[in-house]
Amino acid sequence: MNKQQVKAAIVNIGDELLIGQIVNTNANVIAQMLNTLGIEITEIVVIADAQDAILRTFEQKISQNDIVFVTGGLGTTNDDITKKCICLYYHTSLIENAIVKNHIQDIRKSRGLSIPDSVLSQAMVPQISEVITNPIGTAPGMWIHQNQKVLISTPGVPGELVAMLEEIRLRLQQTFLPWNKIDRHFKISNISESGLSDMLQEFEQGLPDYISLAYLPKYGIINLRLSGRHADKQLLEQEMNRQCALLQNIAKDYIFCDQNIEMAQLVGQVLKQQHKTMATAESCTGGLIAHEITRYAGSSAYFKGSVIAYSNEIKQHILHVPTDTLNTQGAVSEDTVKYMAENLLSLYNVDYSVAVSGIAGPDGGNEQHPVGTVWIAVADKNKCVTKLHHLGFGRQRVMDRTCQLALLMLYQLIQDK
Amino acid sequence: MNKQQVKAAIVNIGDELLIGQIVNTNANVIAQMLNTLGIEITEIVVIADAQDAILRTFEQKISQNDIVFVTGGLGTTNDDITKKCICLYYHTSLIENAIVKNHIQDIRKSRGLSIPDSVLSQAMVPQISEVITNPIGTAPGMWIHQNQKVLISTPGVPGELVAMLEEIRLRLQQTFLPWNKIDRHFKISNISESGLSDMLQEFEQGLPDYISLAYLPKYGIINLRLSGRHADKQLLEQEMNRQCALLQNIAKDYIFCDQNIEMAQLVGQVLKQQHKTMATAESCTGGLIAHEITRYAGSSAYFKGSVIAYSNEIKQHILHVPTDTLNTQGAVSEDTVKYMAENLLSLYNVDYSVAVSGIAGPDGGNEQHPVGTVWIAVADKNKCVTKLHHLGFGRQRVMDRTCQLALLMLYQLIQDK
Repeated sequence: MNKQQVKAAIVNIGDELLIGQIVNTNANVIAQMLNTLGIEITEIVVIADAQDAILRTFEQKISQNDIVFVTGGLGTTNDDITKKCICLYYHTSLIENAIVKNHIQDIRKSRGLSIPDSVLSQAMVPQISEVITNPIGTAPGMWIHQNQKVLISTPGVPGELVAMLEEIRLRLQQTFLPWNKIDRHFKISNISESGLSDMLQEFEQGLPDYISLAYLPKYGIINLRLSGRHADKQLLEQEMNRQCALLQNIAKDYIFCDQNIEMAQLVGQVLKQQHKTMATAESCTGGLIAHEITRYAGSSAYFKGSVIAYSNEIKQHILHVPTDTLNTQGAVSEDTVKYMAENLLSLYNVDYSVAVSGIAGPDGGNEQHPVGTVWIAVADKNKCVTKLHHLGFGRQRVMDRTCQLALLMLYQLIQDK
Repeated sequence: MNKQQVKAAIVNIGDELLIGQIVNTNANVIAQMLNTLGIEITEIVVIADAQDAILRTFEQKISQNDIVFVTGGLGTTNDDITKKCICLYYHTSLIENAIVKNHIQDIRKSRGLSIPDSVLSQAMVPQISEVITNPIGTAPGMWIHQNQKVLISTPGVPGELVAMLEEIRLRLQQTFLPWNKIDRHFKISNISESGLSDMLQEFEQGLPDYISLAYLPKYGIINLRLSGRHADKQLLEQEMNRQCALLQNIAKDYIFCDQNIEMAQLVGQVLKQQHKTMATAESCTGGLIAHEITRYAGSSAYFKGSVIAYSNEIKQHILHVPTDTLNTQGAVSEDTVKYMAENLLSLYNVDYSVAVSGIAGPDGGNEQHPVGTVWIAVADKNKCVTKLHHLGFGRQRVMDRTCQLALLMLYQLIQDK
């Protein structure tokens, strides 16, 4: 790790985060953006909407970092005090910004809303700050550049933050010159984390100190990341290429993808290339696979839709699983998912289908089929592959693992051609 | 806020969090658990798998809090160094724990896996720690009680953490005696955050210093939380009741629920009470509404399934939206969602249906139907209510808002009876 590395801390202000009312997705999208710039994130800190905590954190994090990225506390209610704290910290005061004022008036008018004073007060910003445009909301972002350090403040509303990130990214790129950074990613299946770790022990020990290896097991798939940072771009590229080739050679039987993308994106990529379509028939995942696929823009090119057959009635009447199969084999059985997958192909007129049926829990398990028992089938016109999984406990975890494993099975079926 | 308040910090260790590879859901579930115990969470900190950062954070957070809850860094790979840091911080060393060793052997055998040394090393725990059982994994949790302070260390795998939380909650309850804490929640619709804030200004100023009000707007619905903390339980209860009655009186036209539950749970609750069933027909949400409903255990009592009609072909052939309607009105139109909702009632034989069609973006918008245009319909045998929404930008945000607004519309339809 080099000394001239640009460092950043992320500070999320909000009681709702501290009491667990919402998940901190803001830290995640900010960290991703900073990471792609090669900026090192030293810490993510969540604190209360409390003046002393905010000022203490500003003090500490600004002294230890080049960049402090603050979210939250910019609303119009009394518990929103970030702007006040910025003024106290920088010994400055609020002034009205005409551009922001116009923007607020435009936004409210376009939505047919009145403009109360509390909303107009969002046009007041610290005198020393530059304004970051909020294309979808009334609270502006702020950029304060003082003594070679930058403090960024944005609203905590996730959509508004995301809408400001590109402007912030450009400003950061212009202001700081990060060192060269290269990340390479590998997706690995059919081996446990400890098995892989044993296999790669020697490789890892042989890495130079500016390249590091990280494991991220996720729902039965291991994501490996090789990260390098160095001032000399050419040297870094050469060494990264050499190490990647070594790694790929050692783990060649298990690596199935060398892109940093989600399974749903990977499946979408190959379907798009081949001009093929797909659909899902879901019982225990209740629409999660379809949602995971449609989270990504452009999915309408290959995804036609789903039958969520949460009740047996739907499995019978819509997906035409024979009553006999449901009675003798049960809804969680190889034959059921086979019928679901195969019948969906013609019902939805698609090239590929995925079907899942299982017990997500916490109830519904029995000795023969404990919670976590899941049958998955993937099919095309010539072939139907089925697999039984035992995915352990935890309703959401069972659903998430089923979703990822189903996508992996589908990917493998498509690649088999 | 009283002085004898028990304080906790959450420390999440993991490079994958700092670079934004995964979202920090662990902090969220821990915060929820601590909050229900009345323990104040002073800070959530995410740091790297780096010895100096870990030791510095232990030092700081243990001195400032009664409880420090640490996740991550307990795997079998070289980047997992939490146990080493615990030993350095407490000047102790690792010893083998026989119970954990047996548990590891049982788990691996039950899954038909071998037991490499790297996995067995998870039975080594700091001498001064008590072990917290990990029912679904091989890495144990640790509980260290020294100088009136508790440090808890668990794996970072979300499912394993969740499986340990109940034991940890019981231990915390026994160890600390938190002050009385009461939270009350209200769900509010049909008013903006600033409008509500203006309406409640006087009420908020009249609150005693041990009761606070927080706003959490989420996808068109505002969640209000009134939180009180006091040593005198009776006084706190009386005052909370008085303030809640005041609040309910002021905002009575907008409050539609006084429980701290998600919309999908609220809808499920009334459907269950009335022994009614539902289904969804989704275009732009691609299964999100179905997934949101089935995230909650017991949803099979009222949820039968869905037709995800992402392509027009499925809208036509499965949901029988007339070709003429699709050609003249378009897929994003009042008539289309009306047909989707009404036809689904008979197709899936349910009491209630929800249908959505819109443009989630980033592509697909035009002048007549910009990104964020969404039609929602909810129907029962007697009535079909439709509504046009303009939900702004951001693919995931448009989907999330559509989902919440559709559930709100369904709830209102059911309550109208």
